[in-house]
Amino acid sequence: MKFTSHPNSGFPHSSCGQYSFTDYEKNERSLQRCKCSGTQHDWEVDDVGPDLSEALSALRERFGDKSQKGRVYLVGTGPGDPGYLTLRAVELMQSADVILYDRLVSNEILEYVHDAAIMIYVGKQKGYHTRSQDEIHELLLQFAGQGATVLRLKGGDPIVFGRGGEEMDFLRQRGIQVQTVSGITAASGIGSELGIPLTHRGLSNSVTFLTGHSRDGGFDTTAELAAHAKQNSTLVVYMGLGALPTLTATLQDQGIKPLTPAVAIMKGTTADQRAVFAPLGELAEAVEDAGLKSPTLMMIGEVVSLSPLYPGDGARADVDSHTINAIFGKGFTPLSSEDPSIDLEQGTERLSK
Amino acid sequence: MKFTSHPNSGFPHSSCGQYSFTDYEKNERSLQRCKCSGTQHDWEVDDVGPDLSEALSALRERFGDKSQKGRVYLVGTGPGDPGYLTLRAVELMQSADVILYDRLVSNEILEYVHDAAIMIYVGKQKGYHTRSQDEIHELLLQFAGQGATVLRLKGGDPIVFGRGGEEMDFLRQRGIQVQTVSGITAASGIGSELGIPLTHRGLSNSVTFLTGHSRDGGFDTTAELAAHAKQNSTLVVYMGLGALPTLTATLQDQGIKPLTPAVAIMKGTTADQRAVFAPLGELAEAVEDAGLKSPTLMMIGEVVSLSPLYPGDGARADVDSHTINAIFGKGFTPLSSEDPSIDLEQGTERLSK
Repeated sequence: MKFTSHPNSGFPHSSCGQYSFTDYEKNERSLQRCKCSGTQHDWEVDDVGPDLSEALSALRERFGDKSQKGRVYLVGTGPGDPGYLTLRAVELMQSADVILYDRLVSNEILEYVHDAAIMIYVGKQKGYHTRSQDEIHELLLQFAGQGATVLRLKGGDPIVFGRGGEEMDFLRQRGIQVQTVSGITAASGIGSELGIPLTHRGLSNSVTFLTGHSRDGGFDTTAELAAHAKQNSTLVVYMGLGALPTLTATLQDQGIKPLTPAVAIMKGTTADQRAVFAPLGELAEAVEDAGLKSPTLMMIGEVVSLSPLYPGDGARADVDSHTINAIFGKGFTPLSSEDPSIDLEQGTERLSK
Repeated sequence: MKFTSHPNSGFPHSSCGQYSFTDYEKNERSLQRCKCSGTQHDWEVDDVGPDLSEALSALRERFGDKSQKGRVYLVGTGPGDPGYLTLRAVELMQSADVILYDRLVSNEILEYVHDAAIMIYVGKQKGYHTRSQDEIHELLLQFAGQGATVLRLKGGDPIVFGRGGEEMDFLRQRGIQVQTVSGITAASGIGSELGIPLTHRGLSNSVTFLTGHSRDGGFDTTAELAAHAKQNSTLVVYMGLGALPTLTATLQDQGIKPLTPAVAIMKGTTADQRAVFAPLGELAEAVEDAGLKSPTLMMIGEVVSLSPLYPGDGARADVDSHTINAIFGKGFTPLSSEDPSIDLEQGTERLSK
């Protein structure tokens, strides 16, 4: 049973009384709250998507006799490459009743989902109806309330700029058991992909993950970070594309050298990935010249110079997926093994014990 | 063919001429360099371990006709729970010729290795012969030089305080192709396990991973970090047990409130895990009282208070694995599924295409 109503599936709002909106969004610029007047709702069933009430009915039928509440798993799928899926994530993708997934969860990854799962797209995408965080909370609550095992599937790691904490908090307060399963966060996956260690003796004693997507659109923590970033440290910026000129200018104002090695990586670890190397002082310009789009991650610090792709101090490079694979020998040398058959089934049997 | 010479296997030094020691360790307190006089070597074959020369001979036989060099994979196994293994890690564990593994790679995880792999323990353990980083480099080089696919298996993520960068650098300079596969770093796995998001809107805009195991044993970056840590941020300290009293004192000197929520987690995500919650001002004392041993990770910041295990502001709690599992309902509710059989084999077939 697949309800692949991507990208603008609707959710039938059968009874508004049971909705209790949180005010997580109250400080957000795009405030979205329930406008339900009893029969109307602001996220109507869309005529191009299958009716999700069918999904709920099916769940009611399946779990009708159970008094037990369902549960929710918040699961990260890593930076994009399916090889970074964890065993636990795959196990859940092959057993959950309902799966709510984000824009950053690729089709390659969704292929691991079993056929009977109810699939609901809840990603944000320009030009389409955008689900607010409140709506996602309510969907999770509704499905878990029917007794279902609900999988909330996200790109990266749900607890690193993934809003996993808000979903945990909301559900727990309503008596729904929730477990989180981290995925490889983009900084790690991309660092490995490009040969950039996040820390390195003598070059970097610490690494900081920062979001460029703060509430007011600015980098309010930059001043505090600057003192840190220039001292043997690595700075990784998530969702920082829009604020990149401000960020790089502020970092330099705070004394970080314009020649500090830096790189911006679009769609890291996927076949479409692209890495733009430039010194900090030119990073914003280089990224604009290259026309990088979201999702793009920035890494700033001496460790960037350790990558075999690094073009040299002060130089720029725009490297595509093909070149990255060639440098690292991907797909060139098959694994040698006396027993090449991979027995993962045995593996997860062991896991589920 | 298993050479499970854990924990003090030796490496036969057949010809010293081919060894080219780096000076990675020259700043280390425990300086270890080759003391070979032609026939003698400082890491002799140990009489309790099988002779690794047999392994090398077997490899020579296997790859004798190949002029092709082997390659090295630096692979992280995550925080301890085998569910956090990535598909790529399992794929490599089921196909590599030689596997060098650390102390933090558990037996549960090693069960995923195929039977024909040559297993070499290179972990550091008190009371046993400790392999230096130089020795590990040389072992990787030797085995890859025979044409083998060599898997360097580490706990956590090789590029987050895992010395993966040094191994990459050493091998690349010698013409060996090396790829890194990140694992879930301890901060993420443990954060998920305890219900502590590393970032959270309104509470924490950034997260910093810091090592307490710096070259001089001190926290030389603390002063820089302090300004950062008190501003909506999360601080995670790896390998900080020894320096904990210094760290917590310095953080408070820098203005971080003694009541800031904090937790120390020993053997996180494993059956032996234990979490000690205490306000920052009492953390060092609480950890000493609880007798926590390595590996222990510290998390400091308001996000710690989001855990359902959090005992309340200013209070202490010592929580064991059983309680953690009970709170999160682990093992209580089996996954419901119309098709409970997990088809991971299909999954990795897809992956290896």
